[in-house]
Amino acid sequence: MNNSSSLSIEIIKVKQDTSLKAFDLLASEEPMEIKIVFGRATERIQKSISVTMRTPGNDFELAAGFLFTEGIIKNAGDIRAIKYCNGSNENAVKIEMKDDIAIELNKLERNFYTTSSCGVCGKSSIDAIKTVCRLEDAEKDFTQISPEIIYALPEILRSKQDVFGFTGGLHACGLFNYKGEFLLSREDVGRHNALDKLVGAALNQSMIPLRQNILLLSGRASFELIQKAWMAGISVVAAIGAPSSLAVQMAEEAGITLIGFLRNRSFNIYTGSQIIISIYENSSKG
Amino acid sequence: MNNSSSLSIEIIKVKQDTSLKAFDLLASEEPMEIKIVFGRATERIQKSISVTMRTPGNDFELAAGFLFTEGIIKNAGDIRAIKYCNGSNENAVKIEMKDDIAIELNKLERNFYTTSSCGVCGKSSIDAIKTVCRLEDAEKDFTQISPEIIYALPEILRSKQDVFGFTGGLHACGLFNYKGEFLLSREDVGRHNALDKLVGAALNQSMIPLRQNILLLSGRASFELIQKAWMAGISVVAAIGAPSSLAVQMAEEAGITLIGFLRNRSFNIYTGSQIIISIYENSSKG
Repeated sequence: MNNSSSLSIEIIKVKQDTSLKAFDLLASEEPMEIKIVFGRATERIQKSISVTMRTPGNDFELAAGFLFTEGIIKNAGDIRAIKYCNGSNENAVKIEMKDDIAIELNKLERNFYTTSSCGVCGKSSIDAIKTVCRLEDAEKDFTQISPEIIYALPEILRSKQDVFGFTGGLHACGLFNYKGEFLLSREDVGRHNALDKLVGAALNQSMIPLRQNILLLSGRASFELIQKAWMAGISVVAAIGAPSSLAVQMAEEAGITLIGFLRNRSFNIYTGSQIIISIYENSSKG
Repeated sequence: MNNSSSLSIEIIKVKQDTSLKAFDLLASEEPMEIKIVFGRATERIQKSISVTMRTPGNDFELAAGFLFTEGIIKNAGDIRAIKYCNGSNENAVKIEMKDDIAIELNKLERNFYTTSSCGVCGKSSIDAIKTVCRLEDAEKDFTQISPEIIYALPEILRSKQDVFGFTGGLHACGLFNYKGEFLLSREDVGRHNALDKLVGAALNQSMIPLRQNILLLSGRASFELIQKAWMAGISVVAAIGAPSSLAVQMAEEAGITLIGFLRNRSFNIYTGSQIIISIYENSSKG
């Protein structure tokens, strides 16, 4: 097993009427199992809760972020320790909960569904996430963001990715404040893993809930990503690609401002447009 | 629930220093549950085997293709009937097997893992797929394909997608013969669903195994897509995007020619380069 985030292989490059041997970097994709250990000191239970195909790196952040965005833990203080299950095998991570943390096993069941690409039934999952979401409602916030700040985000995120990440198809997500200042970014072959890593990193740095933060997604905005953003308290999500119908529906429910097709100094606002400064309204024509 | 493949919503378009209200099409994303009914006439068993977030449309193909690429059925003749579980709810599909079709329940277990974005452990899953794959080994085939044929595929697939599919971020896959002639295409918000729909359509048309066919993927080539292509007997897979490390490893094992970054009259060959005509070898320099 190769546990770096990319590996080099020999390929043949064909272009126009030439072909030549070359080396190419591939995004590593390895399984990682997440196990949790919980219960009272006298009666500890170990349970495997997820196997995810991830790009190795930031594995503990991924594990912690996953537990948080799935509603299994409510803050970093629930965790006593995170370790690899055994030294040489980095493809299984064990999260030990503090003794007094209650884990609802039926919630784990739900979580397995939610995190598969299979997903869960739309309507009921929006209800489920509302139950799971333990963040207090944000205070009403009247801050506004200029389109210029939004336009600038993709270039900043790209400058933080290495050439491989940008060209090689790794999904990236970046966290910014409302001034458009870069805070964090993470990459992964799986888009939900990239976000879990980012949330896990934020959790480690006591940044949760991520109020007054903008999340930038390098690809499409799926329903799952909005769900995870909601769990982390993020109020503005901007995607380079398109949102799905269920993503828009969930953003609406969550009060999240959802921006899509952010490219070439333009974007679409799907929900929560009031947060974007509309100094240009005079030019608005339906 | 809206069961067309796209739906229109009102958005705000922001561009440079203007903003205006507009309508935008979103890719529909709805859950679909797949149930199978199997066993002897005297003792029929119904079991839910998957819930997938899919773009409505071609639902029966999706269900049949899923069963086939997951190794649960070996041909269309195993199926007696496919229907919606009840008339008004198109989000649950029931596949009734013929009486004498044996279903291994533990295989279903494996399949659930495989089809989640979670995936399964790399090495063991390649072993698992080899056991599951019931296709006979293809006869040795010395046909070769010119790069010109490969170069032309993306434009042909795009011409078959409507504008929404192309711009709106739906994943597409297309099937071609070795002459580069278009045979079939399918789209979905989920890349593995698009391929399952295509394989399901091929199954209905008695085209399986898809020997001497080229599969074109609109995005990245993941491990899961190579696995499904392998199950359908496809020998050449070309992706507009990058393959992952595990995808290359699986293509190598499967004897599949894997092409990536197919754009602007160029591509990379990751595995199985012998099938591509190398009339240009004189210009090859390592």
